[in-house]
Amino acid sequence: MLLTYWIWLTGLTDHCERQDNTGYHLNQLFIGSEGTLGIITKVSIQAPIKPSAVNVVLLGLRDFESVQRTFHMTKQKLGEILSAFEFFDGQSMRAMLEHMEKKNPLEGDLHPFYVLLETHGSNGDHDAEKLNTFFEAVLDSGLAVDGTLGLDDTKSNELWTMREEIPECIRREGYVYKFDISIPLSKMYEIVEQMRTEFRDRPGVEVFGYGHLGDSNLHLNITLPERDDTFAAEVGEMVYKWTSENNGSISAEHGIGLLKPQFLHFSKSPVAIDLMRGIKKAFDPRNILNPYKLLQ
Amino acid sequence: MLLTYWIWLTGLTDHCERQDNTGYHLNQLFIGSEGTLGIITKVSIQAPIKPSAVNVVLLGLRDFESVQRTFHMTKQKLGEILSAFEFFDGQSMRAMLEHMEKKNPLEGDLHPFYVLLETHGSNGDHDAEKLNTFFEAVLDSGLAVDGTLGLDDTKSNELWTMREEIPECIRREGYVYKFDISIPLSKMYEIVEQMRTEFRDRPGVEVFGYGHLGDSNLHLNITLPERDDTFAAEVGEMVYKWTSENNGSISAEHGIGLLKPQFLHFSKSPVAIDLMRGIKKAFDPRNILNPYKLLQ
Repeated sequence: MLLTYWIWLTGLTDHCERQDNTGYHLNQLFIGSEGTLGIITKVSIQAPIKPSAVNVVLLGLRDFESVQRTFHMTKQKLGEILSAFEFFDGQSMRAMLEHMEKKNPLEGDLHPFYVLLETHGSNGDHDAEKLNTFFEAVLDSGLAVDGTLGLDDTKSNELWTMREEIPECIRREGYVYKFDISIPLSKMYEIVEQMRTEFRDRPGVEVFGYGHLGDSNLHLNITLPERDDTFAAEVGEMVYKWTSENNGSISAEHGIGLLKPQFLHFSKSPVAIDLMRGIKKAFDPRNILNPYKLLQ
Repeated sequence: MLLTYWIWLTGLTDHCERQDNTGYHLNQLFIGSEGTLGIITKVSIQAPIKPSAVNVVLLGLRDFESVQRTFHMTKQKLGEILSAFEFFDGQSMRAMLEHMEKKNPLEGDLHPFYVLLETHGSNGDHDAEKLNTFFEAVLDSGLAVDGTLGLDDTKSNELWTMREEIPECIRREGYVYKFDISIPLSKMYEIVEQMRTEFRDRPGVEVFGYGHLGDSNLHLNITLPERDDTFAAEVGEMVYKWTSENNGSISAEHGIGLLKPQFLHFSKSPVAIDLMRGIKKAFDPRNILNPYKLLQ
């Protein structure tokens, strides 16, 4: 979801103010540092007022270009009430329907792409009107081929649940290799197609793409019938190299941890990695905070 | 203004992605570092779609508690379209009207407080309806004593201009000592009143308070007939000490620069300042980047 919570980490000060421009933002440095710089002992959470209207739309689309253009139209027509814009491909939908034994909410054959978008607003009538106008426009323009509106809690929960069950359903397809990358929108789905082409002759390989378009974040999942470390190493190099060449990040959400320090150079320059080591040394000269993580 | 632009500084990487969780957020570290860590050579700006409706409301209020309660009501009733929530006191309004030779947009005597709020939205009719409902509620509840709606460009520009002319008008009142602090909302105006009490017997001292409530940011301005460095030192200590005791920041927007390094300890603990020095050393071991600024 976009912009659901803002979290301020109070970090090393006892201050918990909204706006502060007194030196380096040490609290920001803790976000994504995976426990390697210090231990967070206090957190202040600012939660926005609960929206009085929450609505969901599911759309079926023909290609990834339509997904991108729909995102643009959504920002124009739903602007300030847009709270999430998720996409998933036909393969992800197929796996979800199969393993959860669900009825397809959009009748007929599977579409190559699906978009699930959510709105949060303070006035239900206004939001319903905006959504109806948007829904008509997105179908009339041909950007979406089919769709359904979730204007009540039951239906919007049902649609969200389907999206949220995708990772679990893909897990049931076989042994999963998961990549969590961010890439400029226009290129986002290319790597999924490239992986399908690459492994089309290898039996039992399935490739899935889904993610959060508002964050340029793609979850690329590849399943094999069984674990295969050689395959994992090969595909890892391919995906990270491609991500790096396309100015992406090799970890949009999951972090680096123990598994990816050797791939960090695909997202960060040697100068940046050296500076990170400098910061680590300033905060943890004896290297006792969460060792082996992030920087090796 | 709240949340008008998000700026991503690409910092030391050639990547310009939306979401990235690969190690320490070096770009965040550059924000507020005042050129002491490196030279920014590339910036990518993501601008939201221009809102099709921009509206402004000016309210007159009786006390600071009403200002706070109005902020709360605004978040409930205008939620997702609220783009700015500014307040200024009667003294600021008086100075503005006098030096700009303007007609008071709210007839009658000056009010102790004013709120100027702005909305950005994608549907003008919806926004006007929300604003009218809010306007009625804020007057009916007695939170605001008087008010005026700026539902067209000319009037909303006029109201914004008045707010923006306040600093210049205060400058014309005498020699100005400016403080830019952030403090928890409930305490925000106390320091203005305290300064008025403190200097009530000193002729020619005027105290003004205005700021951005959404950022907990108060601009405290104190004018004297002439420059007085002894007074400045005395009042500086008082304001920063009070801010520190109330968990505020001694610089919400302006930064530390050359003038405030000796006051940094009011906002940051010795441990935090040591860590900042460690970061500075890692980035700039020869201390050649914007020396004397921020850390002395």
